[in-house]
Amino acid sequence: MQSCAKSWGILFAKSVNSHAPCRHISGKSRIFGKLQTRIQNRNAFVTARGLRTSAVYASSRQIDRILPRHDDFAERHIGPGEREKREMLDVLGLESIAQLIEDTVPESIRIQRSMKMDDPLCENEVLEHLQKIASKNMVWRSYIGMGYYNCSVPPVIQRNLLENSGWVTQYTPYQPEVAQGRLESLLNYQTMICDITGMAVANASLLDEATAAAEAMQLCHSYIGVKTVLKLPHEMDFSGKDVSGVLFQYPDTDGRVEDFTALVDRAHKGGALACCATDLLALCVLRPPGEFGVDIALGSSQRFGVPLCYGGPHAAFFSVKETLVRMMPGRMVGVTRDAAGKEVYRLALQTREQHIRRDKATSNICTAQSSILIGLNQHFVNASLPPFVSGLKRAGHRLHSEMFFDTLKVGCSVAAKDILERAVQREINLRVYSEGVLGVSLDETVTERDLDDLLWVFGCESSAELIAEKMGERVKGIMGSPFKRTSKYLVHTVFNSYHSETNIVRYMKRLENKDISLVHSMIPLPITWKEFANLHPFCPLDQAEGYQQLFRQLEKDLCEVTGYDKISFQPNSGAQGEYAGLAAIKAYLNSKGEAHRTVCLIPKSAHGTNPASAQMAGMKVQVVEVDKDGNIDMANLKALVDKHKANLAAMMITYPSTFGVFEESIDDVCNLIHQNGGQVYLDGANMNAQMMGAKGLVHATEVAILNANYMAKRLESHYKILFKGFCAHEFILDVRPFKKSANIEAVDVAKRLQDYGTLMIEPTESEDKAEMDRFCDSLMGIRQEIADIEEGRMDARINPLKMAPHSLASITSSTWDRPYSREYAAFPLPFVRPETKFWPSISRIDDIYGDQHLVCTCPPMDVYESPYEEKRASS
Amino acid sequence: MQSCAKSWGILFAKSVNSHAPCRHISGKSRIFGKLQTRIQNRNAFVTARGLRTSAVYASSRQIDRILPRHDDFAERHIGPGEREKREMLDVLGLESIAQLIEDTVPESIRIQRSMKMDDPLCENEVLEHLQKIASKNMVWRSYIGMGYYNCSVPPVIQRNLLENSGWVTQYTPYQPEVAQGRLESLLNYQTMICDITGMAVANASLLDEATAAAEAMQLCHSYIGVKTVLKLPHEMDFSGKDVSGVLFQYPDTDGRVEDFTALVDRAHKGGALACCATDLLALCVLRPPGEFGVDIALGSSQRFGVPLCYGGPHAAFFSVKETLVRMMPGRMVGVTRDAAGKEVYRLALQTREQHIRRDKATSNICTAQSSILIGLNQHFVNASLPPFVSGLKRAGHRLHSEMFFDTLKVGCSVAAKDILERAVQREINLRVYSEGVLGVSLDETVTERDLDDLLWVFGCESSAELIAEKMGERVKGIMGSPFKRTSKYLVHTVFNSYHSETNIVRYMKRLENKDISLVHSMIPLPITWKEFANLHPFCPLDQAEGYQQLFRQLEKDLCEVTGYDKISFQPNSGAQGEYAGLAAIKAYLNSKGEAHRTVCLIPKSAHGTNPASAQMAGMKVQVVEVDKDGNIDMANLKALVDKHKANLAAMMITYPSTFGVFEESIDDVCNLIHQNGGQVYLDGANMNAQMMGAKGLVHATEVAILNANYMAKRLESHYKILFKGFCAHEFILDVRPFKKSANIEAVDVAKRLQDYGTLMIEPTESEDKAEMDRFCDSLMGIRQEIADIEEGRMDARINPLKMAPHSLASITSSTWDRPYSREYAAFPLPFVRPETKFWPSISRIDDIYGDQHLVCTCPPMDVYESPYEEKRASS
Repeated sequence: MQSCAKSWGILFAKSVNSHAPCRHISGKSRIFGKLQTRIQNRNAFVTARGLRTSAVYASSRQIDRILPRHDDFAERHIGPGEREKREMLDVLGLESIAQLIEDTVPESIRIQRSMKMDDPLCENEVLEHLQKIASKNMVWRSYIGMGYYNCSVPPVIQRNLLENSGWVTQYTPYQPEVAQGRLESLLNYQTMICDITGMAVANASLLDEATAAAEAMQLCHSYIGVKTVLKLPHEMDFSGKDVSGVLFQYPDTDGRVEDFTALVDRAHKGGALACCATDLLALCVLRPPGEFGVDIALGSSQRFGVPLCYGGPHAAFFSVKETLVRMMPGRMVGVTRDAAGKEVYRLALQTREQHIRRDKATSNICTAQSSILIGLNQHFVNASLPPFVSGLKRAGHRLHSEMFFDTLKVGCSVAAKDILERAVQREINLRVYSEGVLGVSLDETVTERDLDDLLWVFGCESSAELIAEKMGERVKGIMGSPFKRTSKYLVHTVFNSYHSETNIVRYMKRLENKDISLVHSMIPLPITWKEFANLHPFCPLDQAEGYQQLFRQLEKDLCEVTGYDKISFQPNSGAQGEYAGLAAIKAYLNSKGEAHRTVCLIPKSAHGTNPASAQMAGMKVQVVEVDKDGNIDMANLKALVDKHKANLAAMMITYPSTFGVFEESIDDVCNLIHQNGGQVYLDGANMNAQMMGAKGLVHATEVAILNANYMAKRLESHYKILFKGFCAHEFILDVRPFKKSANIEAVDVAKRLQDYGTLMIEPTESEDKAEMDRFCDSLMGIRQEIADIEEGRMDARINPLKMAPHSLASITSSTWDRPYSREYAAFPLPFVRPETKFWPSISRIDDIYGDQHLVCTCPPMDVYESPYEEKRASS
Repeated sequence: MQSCAKSWGILFAKSVNSHAPCRHISGKSRIFGKLQTRIQNRNAFVTARGLRTSAVYASSRQIDRILPRHDDFAERHIGPGEREKREMLDVLGLESIAQLIEDTVPESIRIQRSMKMDDPLCENEVLEHLQKIASKNMVWRSYIGMGYYNCSVPPVIQRNLLENSGWVTQYTPYQPEVAQGRLESLLNYQTMICDITGMAVANASLLDEATAAAEAMQLCHSYIGVKTVLKLPHEMDFSGKDVSGVLFQYPDTDGRVEDFTALVDRAHKGGALACCATDLLALCVLRPPGEFGVDIALGSSQRFGVPLCYGGPHAAFFSVKETLVRMMPGRMVGVTRDAAGKEVYRLALQTREQHIRRDKATSNICTAQSSILIGLNQHFVNASLPPFVSGLKRAGHRLHSEMFFDTLKVGCSVAAKDILERAVQREINLRVYSEGVLGVSLDETVTERDLDDLLWVFGCESSAELIAEKMGERVKGIMGSPFKRTSKYLVHTVFNSYHSETNIVRYMKRLENKDISLVHSMIPLPITWKEFANLHPFCPLDQAEGYQQLFRQLEKDLCEVTGYDKISFQPNSGAQGEYAGLAAIKAYLNSKGEAHRTVCLIPKSAHGTNPASAQMAGMKVQVVEVDKDGNIDMANLKALVDKHKANLAAMMITYPSTFGVFEESIDDVCNLIHQNGGQVYLDGANMNAQMMGAKGLVHATEVAILNANYMAKRLESHYKILFKGFCAHEFILDVRPFKKSANIEAVDVAKRLQDYGTLMIEPTESEDKAEMDRFCDSLMGIRQEIADIEEGRMDARINPLKMAPHSLASITSSTWDRPYSREYAAFPLPFVRPETKFWPSISRIDDIYGDQHLVCTCPPMDVYESPYEEKRASS
């Protein structure tokens, strides 16, 4: 994504700020070791955890038998027990799991050797191990800035959001009826962004500022490949009408605050859009970009509550003018109404994403790291402007600008070397601009002691206390300038109703309880340990030895599992992994002098982000047909390769396929592409079911495959299933025939499943048989209901499927005029019981209304008024 | 409590094991510094936290104004903001909070000086400070045993129970309709105890083994003061029929397992009961006490999942034969049915406690530290019998017994000094019995490396691995002896349904969501930090410097606030504090040669535990009358003092009173008692509202008083309130008149409040005005409903109060034959909404049925059967 930012329009120096450091172990390359096929890595911690703990340890040593490992992660992680597995195999008519695997995973792609991986550790050992690794990181005070700042995360937020498994889910809120809490939280976030930036609308799904900047320029101009031109504002020439957009930083990487009003006007007159990379905390005192005509405001939200974590994962914001809302990339929460007419929340303009025209896709943002975004939106910090500047001047140093927010560029009056040496003595990191020029970025965590240390480092002999006494009450800098913000922000009730800790926790709980979640928690995420959380991405390498060790270990294991030589940990998300992979392929081809190779083949059944990534990497998309089981149509592929062979750049394959099948033709496909000069990109989003590594992984994979096939078997006499033989880890039920027979569509089945309380998406290895049976029973129950409609026993219009989901409000209402009972609606099977049922908090969402009446910030809230208020007033 | 154990019947040496170390700073006394009045301290951490963080810091320094503290705990902890406080004062017709305090807290008891306390720390500073303190504790491996063992707490349990604020509540589950989760969890615990001990019933509220032992002997004999006789089993003589009980350890403190069958028989023949102090983990391999006739089995549950924490707070178990169930002390969860006939849980035999005859009370156990108990019941560890013994023998050491479970008493073949020196080198703590005799207690956290280190420490030159190879498969020790357990345990479905992590988290969440909780979380409890959690109570003092510093700081602050000279941190609970205080008074009087002083005066309005504590301390209770506002009847007091002055030992006063009033006569009362040779015990359970210390405490106290008076004012025209003028921090509504006018009792109002979703008990400082208004509105709504009954508008029998609470099952049922609507039942005021309402998970509990049909372990569960099972079988 970062390199994308560089290949685009006009980008000032903050692009440097926005770059996470390259975390590749070799320290020099973001490029994968081999280009033939590639995998994605979503989260270093999660993967490391899985790898180092999942393996079952079958030792031959007597001591292990006498002193068995009682804390085996794999045993606790995997759902079905031995008896359950036997029962499931019986249903499948199989003797053993080995037989199932033989029938499922093609011989040709199975690894024949055993994996070289460290002995597995039990969970407590993993924690101990991680603690040792953590202790190798050195937590110095970093005033480096460059887009990354220390921030106070109140423990109440840390524990109830960041570390609360109730908020952890891999699912995006596609089912708004059971995700109102998350959606409300994200809407709050968007409202906060709009308030602070002064813009009309904002999204809630970007992961870093670099991506946001790239997306901004992408939005400005719908074609790609234009060259980046770095110019000073007064040098900008829009007169040729050949400029699509301008992007500037406010404040910039030197900490300077400039007036861009004229530049914005000139850009508009020249037909270009103006994009502003900015800082949320600075905008609490600065005039916001929305007030001087900016079209797109963007930046990092990290400092609003996300720990530094050596550079990520973080969150970014992206906000636009009203007129640009329908072109905005990423996910955006909007207000609409439900079937009962109530004001509710859902992902706005979702059809954009779902019905994306594959070859016209222009944005690949889809990962929702909402648990981090949510961490931000109730956390608001006030700027503090310290007397540090007075001390610097007193010591004879020179500031590069008098108009600053938190970052000072300091021309040193003494040798910078001496200052840096003193900084080392106090365990402080500063930014080094150039010879004799140092940078200091302050933040809300700075205390009086920190200021005193900084003053000492810079050779000022006074203390913060003494300097403060002398400073008096004079208003200086921004607060006395035209840059001063005069408009209010965060005035909405939601930002002003939960001040006390008790209240905010209750509010968060209320939101949490509206959402269905997996409520699973493996090892506590060590990201909140200070040794991981408080490391600045640009701190000296020798302070990050713990992180380096993690990367090295993880790379070694991932290389072993995947058969590759090098791994990049740079991508923050799957979508970024796609982009990085394709960009690497493009760079590789260019380096071979084959820049003309731009055609990317993508099967029709691929993830929606694939074509978007290809486009962003500068490729042209050619769709490949698939057969009814989701397998690549080899004849079609051969024809297309033949047609495009001169310009063939790459083919993207999802493996196993989105139909959940391991295609035996994978070898042939790769050979074909390679023979014709192309590279293969493998989308490993479903990689769990391929990771045939150490014993625990094998076990997990086997169970995942067993689970999927068991469910498919139970359902096959009720639904048409889109695969033949045995499936890998998922399968697709075909509900299209019901449209004709009962006017029932997939959405009706999905909403009705909410009533059954079973929202399983993939039968992963962690689900036990009872949970899978409940899910199958729900689908069978629904099939029965469809049959009732088909055969006239149930009304074709007012039936439990069309009216689903049934909210608590509708079931408890005195009015009930449906041709089916309350119990039938809400408790359709014996396992759906009042005391444990998870209720959709609203009725069915009206997407069309919401998209037609787009509202993407918090609607006004009615303040609670006591019905006894008048009595009170008179008492 | 500990000394109580000593003053009782027969107690073998495990009494030593059962004693938490004295944590008093002076290291020599459990006695308070002054005896005139005393306070209780519930939890060192909580109190320390409050003290060091609550204070508002109003600095005159310029630097503090420029760099304000943005992380002020008091600001976030206290509910009402400035505007709200103003509104509340208006309702009270007062100018200022100062005026309110003047009218509430008697001049004579207000502290006139300012408090000497450290500057307050903001929350992050507190954590940093605690981390520094923690680093002064040295976490060595402790194999000391003596009732305290390392244990593996799975992170999933630690995070979802121990550290989850959803389980934290100070309320005991007196309202079972909104506490089914907690109750089910405790019932699981009781079932586990019964299973493992082989006993019929168990309770779930004792805090330590010493208390359990004392309670066991208390149960054996209903009078007190008998002398403790320590005898070997064969010396015991029951023939005089003058022995009430016998208590023995199995295994004992030396780790030895003995056969007590004959002793139990002889005790029974002599008319005495047999009590067995035992170890839950040992009973997984040993024949349980229930199988050789024991009447009472008790012990510590610490090793089932509670961190060592330098000795507490922990949990204990107490289980008895069927015939003794109604004499069992403490809280016990039982099964009953609700109004809808459903099988549900509640505190069994609760009437015992509520309608306790004050002067006949014999047990003072009531503190429910259920969040810790809950931590145990899903955590089951298997014993591991290591090859350590072989190594010891090989090195020439001698074992004191061949029949052991986890503890070895070792006669050393070389100088113990050398062994201990090597132990220090490896940072290992061993138990020192006597010259040349060492103890080692192993537990489930021991790894191969630990064994190798222990073998090295004891001079064995082999390794665990090599020894294990030689050992082969021979069955040794208990497993080859008649002590071997043959009966099954933990066979109930609940212990066998949630094996995978995903499942157990979902189960815990399901339980959590059935309960109303405060969901508040201040600073994360540092008890789970390994430097606090993993310290053995008998580790050398120099390894516990962090704890010592905490105690010193806390004692200093508590002494400053209370005006006392010394504080004991020994009591685990308020009830224990009472007992310790009275025992100290008794010891003091005895030491003065006034052993005849045994009369304890207790006001009628006192907490129910007061008389129980007095009795346990060997005093006779004399009840003092109170007036209708809860004030002590001075005339009656004077008369009683006059009558008993020769034998007057003490008076117990709850201050402020349970009516929430600061009695101005407190000084007179104390003088009167002292003049007549008695001591005063102050029950400070309500001490929050007295703690007039540093500024933050003052603020919190003021707001608590303001809140209470505001609510009283709003309610006074609707209810009769039992106080005059201004109240302190709580007040009592008198609902007795409604019994006659509408057949409505307090329980009906309490149950109906559940429907309103407002369960506020005390209007503490953390509640904001909106929450208080909701509570007042609920009570006014209920008053209106009572008026409707009184005036004939509502049926006298079938009305929302008598039918309360209304469960979700009843509201969603097709059948609705009530003379009021579903909405009126479930959503009586606008703020009670379907999407946020907390639902009672059951209908009104039937206490009488439950007590008549006492079931105190898990009832059989119906295994879920798929309704489509038959189709599956045929597929």
